[in-house]
Amino acid sequence: MASHEHRSLRYAYGFDDVAIAPGDVTLNPDQTDLSLKFGEITFNIPILAAAMDGVVDPGFAILFSKFGGLAVLNLEGVHSRYENPDEVLARIAAAPDQEVTPLLQKIYSAPLKEELVAKCIRRIKAAGATCAVSVTPASTKKLAPVIVEAGADILVVQSTVTTARHLSKSYRGLIFSELCSSVPIPVVVGNCVSYEAAYELMETGIAGLLVGVGPGAACTTREVLGVGVPQVTATMDVAAARDDYFRASGRYVSVITDGGMTHSGDICKAIAAGADGVMLGSIMAQAKEAPGHGYHWGMATPHPGLPRGTRVKVGISGSLEQILFGPSSVTGGTHNLVGAIRTGMGMCGAPTIRDMQKANLLIAPAIKTEGKVFQMRQQSGKS
Amino acid sequence: MASHEHRSLRYAYGFDDVAIAPGDVTLNPDQTDLSLKFGEITFNIPILAAAMDGVVDPGFAILFSKFGGLAVLNLEGVHSRYENPDEVLARIAAAPDQEVTPLLQKIYSAPLKEELVAKCIRRIKAAGATCAVSVTPASTKKLAPVIVEAGADILVVQSTVTTARHLSKSYRGLIFSELCSSVPIPVVVGNCVSYEAAYELMETGIAGLLVGVGPGAACTTREVLGVGVPQVTATMDVAAARDDYFRASGRYVSVITDGGMTHSGDICKAIAAGADGVMLGSIMAQAKEAPGHGYHWGMATPHPGLPRGTRVKVGISGSLEQILFGPSSVTGGTHNLVGAIRTGMGMCGAPTIRDMQKANLLIAPAIKTEGKVFQMRQQSGKS
Amino acid sequence: MASHEHRSLRYAYGFDDVAIAPGDVTLNPDQTDLSLKFGEITFNIPILAAAMDGVVDPGFAILFSKFGGLAVLNLEGVHSRYENPDEVLARIAAAPDQEVTPLLQKIYSAPLKEELVAKCIRRIKAAGATCAVSVTPASTKKLAPVIVEAGADILVVQSTVTTARHLSKSYRGLIFSELCSSVPIPVVVGNCVSYEAAYELMETGIAGLLVGVGPGAACTTREVLGVGVPQVTATMDVAAARDDYFRASGRYVSVITDGGMTHSGDICKAIAAGADGVMLGSIMAQAKEAPGHGYHWGMATPHPGLPRGTRVKVGISGSLEQILFGPSSVTGGTHNLVGAIRTGMGMCGAPTIRDMQKANLLIAPAIKTEGKVFQMRQQSGKS
Amino acid sequence: MASHEHRSLRYAYGFDDVAIAPGDVTLNPDQTDLSLKFGEITFNIPILAAAMDGVVDPGFAILFSKFGGLAVLNLEGVHSRYENPDEVLARIAAAPDQEVTPLLQKIYSAPLKEELVAKCIRRIKAAGATCAVSVTPASTKKLAPVIVEAGADILVVQSTVTTARHLSKSYRGLIFSELCSSVPIPVVVGNCVSYEAAYELMETGIAGLLVGVGPGAACTTREVLGVGVPQVTATMDVAAARDDYFRASGRYVSVITDGGMTHSGDICKAIAAGADGVMLGSIMAQAKEAPGHGYHWGMATPHPGLPRGTRVKVGISGSLEQILFGPSSVTGGTHNLVGAIRTGMGMCGAPTIRDMQKANLLIAPAIKTEGKVFQMRQQSGKS
Repeated sequence: MASHEHRSLRYAYGFDDVAIAPGDVTLNPDQTDLSLKFGEITFNIPILAAAMDGVVDPGFAILFSKFGGLAVLNLEGVHSRYENPDEVLARIAAAPDQEVTPLLQKIYSAPLKEELVAKCIRRIKAAGATCAVSVTPASTKKLAPVIVEAGADILVVQSTVTTARHLSKSYRGLIFSELCSSVPIPVVVGNCVSYEAAYELMETGIAGLLVGVGPGAACTTREVLGVGVPQVTATMDVAAARDDYFRASGRYVSVITDGGMTHSGDICKAIAAGADGVMLGSIMAQAKEAPGHGYHWGMATPHPGLPRGTRVKVGISGSLEQILFGPSSVTGGTHNLVGAIRTGMGMCGAPTIRDMQKANLLIAPAIKTEGKVFQMRQQSGKS
Repeated sequence: MASHEHRSLRYAYGFDDVAIAPGDVTLNPDQTDLSLKFGEITFNIPILAAAMDGVVDPGFAILFSKFGGLAVLNLEGVHSRYENPDEVLARIAAAPDQEVTPLLQKIYSAPLKEELVAKCIRRIKAAGATCAVSVTPASTKKLAPVIVEAGADILVVQSTVTTARHLSKSYRGLIFSELCSSVPIPVVVGNCVSYEAAYELMETGIAGLLVGVGPGAACTTREVLGVGVPQVTATMDVAAARDDYFRASGRYVSVITDGGMTHSGDICKAIAAGADGVMLGSIMAQAKEAPGHGYHWGMATPHPGLPRGTRVKVGISGSLEQILFGPSSVTGGTHNLVGAIRTGMGMCGAPTIRDMQKANLLIAPAIKTEGKVFQMRQQSGKS
Repeated sequence: MASHEHRSLRYAYGFDDVAIAPGDVTLNPDQTDLSLKFGEITFNIPILAAAMDGVVDPGFAILFSKFGGLAVLNLEGVHSRYENPDEVLARIAAAPDQEVTPLLQKIYSAPLKEELVAKCIRRIKAAGATCAVSVTPASTKKLAPVIVEAGADILVVQSTVTTARHLSKSYRGLIFSELCSSVPIPVVVGNCVSYEAAYELMETGIAGLLVGVGPGAACTTREVLGVGVPQVTATMDVAAARDDYFRASGRYVSVITDGGMTHSGDICKAIAAGADGVMLGSIMAQAKEAPGHGYHWGMATPHPGLPRGTRVKVGISGSLEQILFGPSSVTGGTHNLVGAIRTGMGMCGAPTIRDMQKANLLIAPAIKTEGKVFQMRQQSGKS
Repeated sequence: MASHEHRSLRYAYGFDDVAIAPGDVTLNPDQTDLSLKFGEITFNIPILAAAMDGVVDPGFAILFSKFGGLAVLNLEGVHSRYENPDEVLARIAAAPDQEVTPLLQKIYSAPLKEELVAKCIRRIKAAGATCAVSVTPASTKKLAPVIVEAGADILVVQSTVTTARHLSKSYRGLIFSELCSSVPIPVVVGNCVSYEAAYELMETGIAGLLVGVGPGAACTTREVLGVGVPQVTATMDVAAARDDYFRASGRYVSVITDGGMTHSGDICKAIAAGADGVMLGSIMAQAKEAPGHGYHWGMATPHPGLPRGTRVKVGISGSLEQILFGPSSVTGGTHNLVGAIRTGMGMCGAPTIRDMQKANLLIAPAIKTEGKVFQMRQQSGKS
């Protein structure tokens, strides 16, 4: 019996573990360019609204498009199951806490209706907005033709963990390379957290990649399954794959950090870690125009056998315009997200998102103890 | 006087310090095989119920066996000391907090009765269940013949720290190699946390090894004695010994992580750290069929001179079937443990427990601050 | 697709992460010399009061100068906008919490009046005090002549992040080398956190440098923008630039740690990290002579579009003299700051600030859990 | 301007950061030898009671000696200043929280009386107990003859930080080598935390060394002065000096970890870090025989200009005998300290304190969040 090598583990970092160091050159915020591309489609702001029923309905998608971002409509939620989704959403908002998980399990067991899928897409397009919709891998083959036919601009295929190689006995797995060559619109896929899985997915021809599996320190996927990678490390790894794939192929696949961001500072950190854009759930659910009535819930919440997450009360913090562009008299980083990104980029001397991806990230854990410490830690610097 | 080398200390990790990264291939959960073996006996699910009086009585052991797992009956508890253990258990559950430690000290000072030991085993066997029983090293020589005679299938010898070499003036220590050759059933030994101690114990001929000494960050063994090794590091080290011993001897000794797991995610992490199975106390004590009436307590709690731990109220969360297999409308990772293991293995592309032991573990501390942060950290991904 | 190098991140440390090891020689506290210089001006104590409207008004500046330190008057605050600043300050103190940010936004939108700028400076000088005033880079060119003309001794140019190279389309950036050669008084610039930015700023001819961007673990600049460097690391890096620049040029630029210090122990740590002095906001706002009526607020708080921070209630803990020199019957490190610095230096055997900068700093995180743990951790050592 | 080397900081560890791994051999607790020596004087248990007025008075010292340990009487406290110390102690216990620091400042400003010093020592000796007394370096030259004359067995010279080289203008520093050769009894000195300072002090001829400066994570010396070294690192460093000095000189100087221990587990960790014994304040103040009426306070608390620490309510947990030897029905590690040390040594297979100093220490932070997590983390192992 000899002595043995200890198995060594790698450190992974989340938003609360890091901070951005300012640059040696600074820049006026109004000189920054925040644009984001999927294939040939360009957006003025690098923000996506998450495909959650409490966040995006067709009306919200239209408004969000007007503001220069991209809201993704969930095509496996209430809008594709019910003729009257607003009434269903109101029931979810009104349910007492202890009854909400069974209620969600019941509501989401109603069948999907293809005609409702098409109707949602047509309504968004009729308003002149860019239309992105989201489906799971298992439904993609069935719904993709309907989606393309109805005129959607971007197809998002999303599950908790998505890889280019999924093994299943019960159905023939979705082949992303076949999907990308068969649909004429950009395909965005997620979620994914590693260099290797990201690289393989990019090789299938996708236009964008969503990063994030169990990102929060105490997220339920991590509690229930033990699975999860903190978002800063996940974003850095997937961004490294994007850059290597770009060098090898000449094709640029946009990387979107999805989940775990609660303040505008987290968005700046995601970009500094390598993201081209971010997908936001709870911050967007706080808009008065969001369909969730001040609540939101993840798509794993109503899982019939193994529900993960629950309905969360986020409240309503202001209009979508205030959340995106201010003006604000709120000081916690949930209003004027775009102004915060521009100001952060100015402090780092970064004129574009690609430049901000090279900002200096430090490991600097934020231990949030109590309100008093929080407030005492002001600095005398001026804006 | 020269400068000196600083004594350097090794880092050790617990469940809250790590997370599992998903794989580059994924797998449908229904394609996973969770089987566990001790010697020639195979179990369908890799879960043991802990040898604690609040968790396992003969009835619970029979039911647990029916579900494919293994419940271990403590043979030095109330069932071997009292003709009417149910009445004693009810008294423990009814005692006020401040009186419970002296009450436990008193109850556990009653003498062991060999005829009760045999009676318990025969009752379990009569129901057609697999019967595992647990004794301390000091009682093993006296009770082993009774246990074998009564027909038990597996003998567990367990104390806080067990080594192949125990030095004592007052009695001749238990020699595990003698025990293993003298009893005709598989012997499982614990607890143990280091490579060297584990390797030496495996060489004695045991069939299984329990891992865990003072595993929790704030466990009382650690408070009272300062002794304890976080479970992920302990499991990784003992698993390395198992693999090295298997390469050297061709004999596979199953490694069971025992203690410190509070959610199904912790079970997935234990397996990813190298465990073949897990032994659960508090989660199992929450079953409505558990004998503790919503309470449990460790076997060090009633120690007459140096009690460690106390009676803990865990409440009753559901039936044993729900806890093991769901369905569930509980979202915190205490129901449908088997479903969670299968889903976690699917995300890692691991068809067997042996494959899951090679999953990529990351250091990613979970700082659980407050309910609000917890809830805000949802992700938009779908199940 | 090859394996990739992980992008590696550097650790950064704040006050709560470190502790000072005592020296191998000790010194009587009364043998320590705490003096600080900007150009030819020497101060007996290495403490600056922050340029915040709740901390410094002309009366406070006069008193602070008498005690041997340097209070910096903010020339873009209420004293330069209102004839009756005391009445405005009283309104700020009286406003309910939820109304204070809009009120600050409104108050600070009133125009600056050059005659009030000059009046404040003259009042301080007339009392025989050393006068330091603070402006932002954008106002410097306009206000510098007025400031010099009125007789100020030190000019502080301060914004959240200041570099020698600021890029702007809308105005020609302030050139610090031009400023330093055109004004006949020492120029102190801030804030800055990196070696490179500090070195470049020193090359412009400045006399002092303020260190600190988003220093606190939970400071709002960090929440809103993600930008911030913990103060110990920032101070160590800027101090390294100061020492290298001094070796190269023969000119010594004093480095002042600004922000994030809540106890006298933090001041000692800043010096041990390399600071020549410290700038204090919240501790000084607790003086009964401070103009904030027990409140203070940062200069980024009233930002019209992206307010950061808020009005903080600090209360009044005693007179400025008690805060600086004691005597004290307060045990938490907010009184007798000068005595604490001297005692800390004595324990490290450091006769001067320059010697204290070489003290042995250790990484020793302070996890402040609960009052009880805090209080139980006394040591039996005598003073 | 070239790039620069970052100043690197060393990690330091406290009790909550580490855990002891059990050994590969185990031992019956009754086979352990806990003896401790200062010079030729041997003690059966390696525990000193701290020289604090709330902990040790002559009666307590006599009882403690009877139990085999060593209680140190503070000769600069109430017993040397007042004819009626019990009445003074009762006043301290009865004072409201907000008045206690000024009251302590006043009480401890009364003059020392040499006849009271001698009286205390004679009373302890008359009872047949071993007598250890404590003075500060500044009083040592004056009081040492009185102490020796009165018959004390051990002289402790203690201040917050003590070095062999103290620089002072106002008085000629105490020369420890002169002291050790002039007094005929063992001299124990403290406090000290570094290899170098410890080595130099050992060379002066002392018999014992107290380790600990600002040990607790949130101790006031650290808050007020920033100075402090976590106890595990401090003990490891001083123990390394002891071992090197022993190899070089053949003389063994006992190392006593002083402060920061709140549970018996911390005592085991101190020994595993290299201590020969421990000095306890708050745990001993909880004895019903302690003079503090359930309170204690450090000797830096009444400092007239810079008070550090405060009166702490510890309550009364049992008799001194129970605290030292049990039996116990308390499960938190504050009773049966000696039993816990023996049990911990047994788990590590360490027959003597010198063997236990070689136990395997791991870095395994204890994050104590909330009662619930604490209690759920029980393990099923038996005692």
